[in-house]
Order: sequence, then structure tokens, then C-alpha cells
Amino acid sequence: MDRINYAQDIVKPLNMVTGPNGEVQISGFIHKIRVMSGFSFVILRVNGSLVQCVMNESMGQELQDHVIEGNTVSIEGQLRKEERAPHGFEIEIHALHVLSKSAEHPPIVINRKNMSLSLDTNLNYRSISLRHPKEAAIFKIQEGIVRGFRDFLHKNHFTEVRTPKIVFAGAEGGANIFKLNYFEQEVFLAQSPQFYKQALVGVYDRVFEVGPVYRAEKHNTSRHLNEYTSLDFEMGYIHDFTDIMKMEVGFLKYMFELLKEEYADQIKLLDVDIPHVDSIPALKFLEVKKIIEEKYQRIPTDYDDLDPEEEQLICDYVKQEYGSEFVFVTHFPSDKRPFYAQDDPNSPQFTLSFDLLFRGLEVTTGGQRIHDYHDQIYKMRQKGMNVDDFESYLMSHKYGIPPHGGLGAGLERLTMKLLKLPNIRQACFYPRDMNRVTP
Amino acid sequence: MDRINYAQDIVKPLNMVTGPNGEVQISGFIHKIRVMSGFSFVILRVNGSLVQCVMNESMGQELQDHVIEGNTVSIEGQLRKEERAPHGFEIEIHALHVLSKSAEHPPIVINRKNMSLSLDTNLNYRSISLRHPKEAAIFKIQEGIVRGFRDFLHKNHFTEVRTPKIVFAGAEGGANIFKLNYFEQEVFLAQSPQFYKQALVGVYDRVFEVGPVYRAEKHNTSRHLNEYTSLDFEMGYIHDFTDIMKMEVGFLKYMFELLKEEYADQIKLLDVDIPHVDSIPALKFLEVKKIIEEKYQRIPTDYDDLDPEEEQLICDYVKQEYGSEFVFVTHFPSDKRPFYAQDDPNSPQFTLSFDLLFRGLEVTTGGQRIHDYHDQIYKMRQKGMNVDDFESYLMSHKYGIPPHGGLGAGLERLTMKLLKLPNIRQACFYPRDMNRVTP
Repeated sequence: MDRINYAQDIVKPLNMVTGPNGEVQISGFIHKIRVMSGFSFVILRVNGSLVQCVMNESMGQELQDHVIEGNTVSIEGQLRKEERAPHGFEIEIHALHVLSKSAEHPPIVINRKNMSLSLDTNLNYRSISLRHPKEAAIFKIQEGIVRGFRDFLHKNHFTEVRTPKIVFAGAEGGANIFKLNYFEQEVFLAQSPQFYKQALVGVYDRVFEVGPVYRAEKHNTSRHLNEYTSLDFEMGYIHDFTDIMKMEVGFLKYMFELLKEEYADQIKLLDVDIPHVDSIPALKFLEVKKIIEEKYQRIPTDYDDLDPEEEQLICDYVKQEYGSEFVFVTHFPSDKRPFYAQDDPNSPQFTLSFDLLFRGLEVTTGGQRIHDYHDQIYKMRQKGMNVDDFESYLMSHKYGIPPHGGLGAGLERLTMKLLKLPNIRQACFYPRDMNRVTP
Repeated sequence: MDRINYAQDIVKPLNMVTGPNGEVQISGFIHKIRVMSGFSFVILRVNGSLVQCVMNESMGQELQDHVIEGNTVSIEGQLRKEERAPHGFEIEIHALHVLSKSAEHPPIVINRKNMSLSLDTNLNYRSISLRHPKEAAIFKIQEGIVRGFRDFLHKNHFTEVRTPKIVFAGAEGGANIFKLNYFEQEVFLAQSPQFYKQALVGVYDRVFEVGPVYRAEKHNTSRHLNEYTSLDFEMGYIHDFTDIMKMEVGFLKYMFELLKEEYADQIKLLDVDIPHVDSIPALKFLEVKKIIEEKYQRIPTDYDDLDPEEEQLICDYVKQEYGSEFVFVTHFPSDKRPFYAQDDPNSPQFTLSFDLLFRGLEVTTGGQRIHDYHDQIYKMRQKGMNVDDFESYLMSHKYGIPPHGGLGAGLERLTMKLLKLPNIRQACFYPRDMNRVTP
């Protein structure tokens, strides 16, 4: 019998194990070799970043034969200052051990400054293209967004929950839902955690979830994925629906600060333009339509929703007028919002709901929900729904639930707009669309 | 146009907004009313916990008519010490506003010390039964387990990733996989993030994911769910497979400390027996079989795997002999482990793999993976697999990947065993089994 204990020596030598006089041990991929006169630069890739090492010819041919791009190695050496190197230092190699060998040169070039691949090629070789430091940096920043969301909500007394993705009925309704054969029963993949997060407000007052959601939408655009990550929260005891927007502003501020503090290398590498968020302007849906008509001479064709061009125009307008890259659009028409949306008591054809737009794109939908059982039944009947189908959803309302509301934000959309990526697929590790379920 | 800002006043009055002389504002569910002589106890339920308030008869009948179990209210009052109350204090009610009303009394009683419901009834009324403080406490502790996993790995330089749940091929193979109709194509729900997390070791060296996984297993037992949450990590540059076990020991220690520090109320309420983890004993698979045969006179019927009774017996043995409630079983037979498991070079019929057992149940499976392309191809052919089906999986191996390994732990199993719950369904918000897809 052995005994296994947590050992400090398995803590990653990412930031390297160094001795008192700059002795270094480090492991990584051989990312790039540049042969110079009398020595070679061996650029290691460690945790998605590059580290410059120097190998002298005197190390012998046998060893140098194994120093091949794509192999992984462990290096012992001496740290020294070098301002022209990626982190201001380089490592003189004293000993090198090959840990693993690549079998072939990759079909795509991941060790130049930019990959310059078509999106399709990038995605076909996704597990390799992600090794490019600029691709790796995208998802480090995405990690920061998720951490910011969770940490901020935790500090604000939200409880983290996990809700089922296999469901008996879709929360958003409509045709955009994937069907699944579940032990001879037809069930669905969840379009959102909506019903569950509302129910869990009855348990913890404030809840959040970060998880996958599924939309069987049959359009291939640069801003839709069929499987995406939703940042959801739901909060009880709200005074009105602006509490939800206030919480989102708090999250954004907190998250951008976290990125600046802990993801500075990636921000620099990708030249990320972190928006300034202090307060965010809020315009009513009808105001937005009016502004677009007046300022841009564009007659609305649809008074139920905003189309992508209108989203772009109102963002341009707000940026110019108020200096904000975010804008809340509030009071969307009841006809277009789901049955659980609370209507505005002052003008019931509009809801106490909002979208958040960021750099021309909707990144969040939220609002106050109906909490009164009779009000909810009434609105469902008004919408022609069969109340009996929603018995378990209505349980919360029937046995009491506080005034509440919440939102869902698309992680990939937030990432895409923050990094100004042209296509949402670039903001997803392994995107799923109508034509792609691999790799 | 309005401007929306994050406001400190929406930070939860969970722990109450108090004035300098003990004035209090608090909102919550009316959980229970106990009418006494001249006054009533009004027990509020706030964020899953109970707060004792006192309402005097002098407050008037009209108000008291609205003080009904299931309604939500906001209270203004005076805090005072009361050692017999849940948190050592109570609130004398000065003003009370009803925020929402319940339409009916619930069909299950959630305001007694214990619910004493059958599991089926508990699950049928899940959104209501979860409101019982003991049920709510289970998932607060589960939140702590997840936080412990993420925080510990983040401190150890792991990157958080998200991998697709809609996949073209299952990682574990076999019949236990759900099929999905995806735009006229047959695809599957992921059984584990295995292939993806291995590939992402090529990007970030160390990665983890907390997400749902799907097993279409056709048995209804007390320890299986068809949708569960997997705590997964994968780490590169390991010296050998014990590095993975060391990391798990570190996670467990860290997580139990976090629970003791931040979830003390729930630990007390549920009388949780937090195990002591210093080092964890590790026994080889064959040693385990031998111990069970010799100590318990139980002749093994299967030399490929451990059955549930053997898991229980070896845990009893290790508890008695070494005082540990955890035990690693290592070196499982190659025949029963997946094609990506690294064989032991000293005895290739066994793998460099392990299970972690906790109080009689397997809660983790892990091991070192094959990293060499040719070795992987060889083993796949040996197992009669079609190598061409795994082209995108093998890309990582072909173009180089460091020595690596990882594990997957079942969140609900860990929770179940930690809390000594008799059925895994009690450790899942909304469990899914062969017969249950609602609520």
C-alpha cells in the first residue's frame, strides 16, 4: 500500500521553478526553432504563452536532433534578462529532455504571428489551431468573463445552481428546439434554464447558472450558435426591473476590472479595447424606433422587435451622444416577449423587460417576471396556451414566489463583441452550427 | 433616457440592512406562524435559512390577515438578542408589507423540522420540497464542493474550458449513449468531455470543466443518474499517474476546509460528518481482490472490475486498518478500461489508472492517457477499433501532446456520500432517470 498526498511539487512550473541564482526548470511544447549563427532560439509554448530559450551548438548534435517543433520537452537552464524576449527574459538551456514526440508536422502553421486561416480550416483543425497563442488568449479572456460573472454574483449573495438540460417542455416554445429520444419518450434539450431558475428563487432568493443551452435555429449567421453558454441569473425581492439592470452593470464593471488585473498579457496580445462602464444609458423601445426614424431616416418595418441593423444604428447613436458602448433598450412589446414577462401596469402592451446591446449586438435579454399565480394564468390564457401543460412551472406561483426577475447573457456574444471578432464561432472552443458537429 | 448604475442598495438584505441602533429591514417568505398568547412568532425564510420575528397583537387585525404562510413580505423592525432563536437573535416587527401572495397552501409540509416524504413525492413537488431548509442546505454544500474544485484548480494554474455536449461520437463508446436528431443528422449527447479535455491539454497544459454529462444506462439504482454533473480535469507534463491522484487529494483537502469555513450553518443543520483527509491509501486492483478474498471469504466472480459489494468491503477494510474514508484503487485491468488508458509498462495487462472510493462508492475515475500517436493507434487496433473514426481525436497525438492524465468525479455522488444520503436523486436539484424527466 502507498499513501497519496497532495504535493507542492506538482504545482505547475508554469511560472517556473527557480533556484536562488536564477536556475530554472520548465516544461513546454517546442513552438518554434530559429537557427542562428552558433546557437538557436527555442521558443517554448507554456500554458498558451511563449517563453524564449537559447540553445548553444555546443550541446551536441544528438540532442539537437530531438529538438523538433511539436515535441514537448523539459528544460533546465539559467534565467537571464533580455528585453527583446516576450516576457523580458530568456532561458539559456543547460539540459533538455524530450517528453513526447509529434508524429508529423501539422497541416496548419501555428507558430507565426498570425495564422491567416479561413474560418473553416481553423475549425476543421480546431484542436491544433487553438494552440496558436492568439487563439488561446481568446479563451483565457473568456475564462475571465465567466469568473467575473460568478465571483460578482457570489459576492452579491447569489447561490449557484445546476438545472437539467433534458426537459419535458421548452421554456421559450416555438420550433427552435432539439428533440431527443429518451428511453422511448420524446423529450427536448433545454432552450434556457428559465423555468428552473424562477423556481429556485423560491429556494434561495437569488440564483445563477453558467451552462449550455440549445437553439435549433435554422440560420447560419455570424452571431448564432446552436449550442452556446448562457450566463443566467434570477433574483427575488426586486423593487422593480431596473434592479436587474443595475446588477448587470455591476457585473460588467467588476468583470472588466478583473480582466485588466488578471488577464493583462492576453489583453495586450489581442489589443483588446476594454470599454469604459460607469452607468449605462437606457432607452425605451419606442424611443429607439423614433430615434432611428428621425436620425437615420429609416422607417421601421417591424414594431415588435429590433432588427440587426437597428441594433447597430442605436448603438452608433448612443456611442456618439452619450459615449457609451452599451445601451439598455427597455419596454419591449408584450406580443414579442414570452408569457412569463411582466407587463408594464402603465401601458400593458409593453413589458418590464430589456435587452442589453453592446457594440451593435444584443448580448442580454432580461426582465421582471410575473409572480402572481392568477396574473400568470390570465396571461397564459390570453396567449392561447394550455395552462395544464405548465403545472409544474406554475407550482412556484401557486404556493408563493416573491417579485423577481433575471436575465440571460450569451457568453460567446459577449466575448465576440469585447474582442471585436467578426464571427461568433471564433468565440467558442468547438462551435456547433447547422453544418458542423465536429470536431 | 435614464442611466443605469450598479447600486449598493440592491446588495441583498440577507444579512439585513441594519441601522445604528439595531433597526432592521428584511424580506423573505413567511415560512411558519406560531400563535402565542398576545403575540405570534413569524418565522421568515431568507436565502434558505430561518429568521425568527415577533409580531404583537397590537399590530391590528387587518395586517395580521395578510400574514399567511407562503406569502412574501418585507419587514421593518428591531433586532434583539434571543439565544433560543435560530441565529441567536430575533426581530420585533414594527411594520410589515406583503410583497406577494400564495394562491393555495402547499400539498406538502415544508415548515416542520423534517419533511418525512417519500422520495417520489419529494421529487414530484421538487420546486416546493427544495424550500425546506434541510433540502436547501444540501445544495448550498454542493455549491461549496464546486467552488472548492474550481478555486483549487485555478490556484494550480488550470484553465477553465467548455466543451460541446452535442457530439459526433461518444468518448466511452458502448450502447449507453443518447441519440439526437440534429438537422437530419444523427448525433449524440456527450458521455464525458474526455476527447476535448485531452485536446485542450495541447493548448493550456492544464484544463478543467464542470458540466453535464449523459449516460443512457438502463438501470434504476440509488447511485446512477442519466444526467449528472462531472467535475473533470486533465493535466499535462505529469511525471506519472500519481500526480493526478495527488492533485485530487489536494482538491479534497481544500474543499473540506472551504466547507468548514463558509458553510458552517449547513454543516450544522445537516450534521455533516466531514472526513479527515491527510493522505489517502492506495491499493492495487489485485491487492484489493486478494484482501476481499482473504478477509471476507468472498471469492471474486469477476477479475475485470469491482462490484458494488467489493467497493463497500474494501472501504470498510481501509477505514478499519488505516482510518481513512477514502481509498484509491489503482492498476485496473486493460480489458475494462477505455482505449486511451496508458498500460503499465511493467505489466501491460493493467493500466496506470485509478478509481477513488469514498464510503463504499466509486466517486472518481482517472488515469494516465496514451500520448504517443503510434502507441495510441496500436492499442486502438488491438481493441478492434476503426482508427479512421477517430481522426479528429488523434490529431492531438499526431501533432504532439505532452504526457498527461486526468480524472472525472461525479458531483452528485460526492455530495451523496459526504451527506450520507441514501439515494443519489437527493443530491440533484432536478434528477433525471429512466422514468423521470419532470419537473
